[in-house]
Amino acid sequence: MAMFTQMTILGPGLLGASLAMAAKERGLVKRVTAWSRSPATRAKCAQTDWCDAVFDEPRGAVAGSDLVVLCTPVETIVPLLEQVAASLEPGVLVTDVGSTKSLIVRQVQGLDGSFSFVGSHPMAGSERTGMDHAHAGLFKDAACFVTPIDSTPADSTKKTAAFWQALGMVVTPLSPERHDEIVAHISHLPHLLASVLCAYLATKDPSWRNFSGGGLRDTTRVASGDPALWRQILGQNREEVLRSIDGLEAVLHSLRAALSNDDAASVHSLLQKGKTYRDGL
Amino acid sequence: MAMFTQMTILGPGLLGASLAMAAKERGLVKRVTAWSRSPATRAKCAQTDWCDAVFDEPRGAVAGSDLVVLCTPVETIVPLLEQVAASLEPGVLVTDVGSTKSLIVRQVQGLDGSFSFVGSHPMAGSERTGMDHAHAGLFKDAACFVTPIDSTPADSTKKTAAFWQALGMVVTPLSPERHDEIVAHISHLPHLLASVLCAYLATKDPSWRNFSGGGLRDTTRVASGDPALWRQILGQNREEVLRSIDGLEAVLHSLRAALSNDDAASVHSLLQKGKTYRDGL
Repeated sequence: MAMFTQMTILGPGLLGASLAMAAKERGLVKRVTAWSRSPATRAKCAQTDWCDAVFDEPRGAVAGSDLVVLCTPVETIVPLLEQVAASLEPGVLVTDVGSTKSLIVRQVQGLDGSFSFVGSHPMAGSERTGMDHAHAGLFKDAACFVTPIDSTPADSTKKTAAFWQALGMVVTPLSPERHDEIVAHISHLPHLLASVLCAYLATKDPSWRNFSGGGLRDTTRVASGDPALWRQILGQNREEVLRSIDGLEAVLHSLRAALSNDDAASVHSLLQKGKTYRDGL
Repeated sequence: MAMFTQMTILGPGLLGASLAMAAKERGLVKRVTAWSRSPATRAKCAQTDWCDAVFDEPRGAVAGSDLVVLCTPVETIVPLLEQVAASLEPGVLVTDVGSTKSLIVRQVQGLDGSFSFVGSHPMAGSERTGMDHAHAGLFKDAACFVTPIDSTPADSTKKTAAFWQALGMVVTPLSPERHDEIVAHISHLPHLLASVLCAYLATKDPSWRNFSGGGLRDTTRVASGDPALWRQILGQNREEVLRSIDGLEAVLHSLRAALSNDDAASVHSLLQKGKTYRDGL
């Protein structure tokens, strides 16, 4: 049975288009409308079987919808919601798929409107972006955060969580602040380290890359992600990301000191601690 | 046509056993003898079809061999060669598969014997170790360094390179020092960062690991490697590894500063630099 009559995807990239495909496939929504700022993406939407109507401005896309999902880069989520707020149906459920939550949730509180907003962060995606890589299986068995605050109606939180669950996700409700702390460590910091490692290696002899093995390739895969998206994510989660960098640096310094002092026991102990953690993932 | 009549594998773990399998499969050696310090591994050797004779002490294994490959952890390569030196056939070619080269090559120069040593580093392997994971395809299309020095007979270098090439590897001759600088950056530093990241995350709430996605898993895969092996590798390549840590830290600090100053252009530029490098791997 459909949970929503009409879902609007604002920004149908990898996540938005995959979400529409998955929700249609599972019968969770009857109709899907979409808006993209890109004419090329709108043209592609018109030819898919998951999109029932595509609009060239976002206000048109949200009319008549009981679920609106904001799927644009994190910095444009709130401005976009502000732009469509007056056109939303009363009582509509609005959520997003942004990788950061505190700033978005705080800014949405300042908007006027009779919509109900619950922040979401489905931990799906890849270093590839855009609708061309979308597929209905993207969310299956992955983790999803929903980040209600005190003023969020319990029913809205429940409906949002049920929607992601119905897509096969493992949902965890969490405060936006706690969410941002966690993803700073398990997602943003690993990404940033991969980028820093690659940016550093880029300063070295280009021929070295011919000698790289599977280790370097795996370790740095995420560095291929879109710099524009990730610049926004790191910026929106700045305080937590800076804290995670400092925490990592402390461990890096202790390893550096142990190595420098030829303290084999401490080097071994740190490597063992890392292995135990990794083996448990 | 066989390149060698009898090859000895000292330390048939993942690399040594895979090497014996591959060399036999391609007909590069007629016979293979092996020695392992582990009775369990010796018992396994006796049951494989790549091993013609297994010995419970290394001197026995090298008798009659025209190729000896040292496949133990890096710290034991030179002591082991010293132990068998007097038992080697005159003119035998000796090589190794160690991940570090300068210290090993320097120490081998101090040994007496009528053998000819050429350092090798086949860039194959994985976070899994031991003979049980060995397979004949391990070396195919991977990079391999050979590290002759001024006193190395040209013919020995040529034979060593030809052997790895015949196994399907892309061989690069390089000085031991240059080798160590390169692998410090493209192998040891990525490994160490993955270990440091995991050791840091291990200090956080254990439940966070439930939220990890493919990004964290890929980024940290190598941290599952054997701490005893990697402690030795980092120790033997200490100077270059310390230099690579310092170089990486400088880039990390510049990203931290850009993020802290809300300097979006610099953050974007660093992420873009990393992406360009990674896309080129």
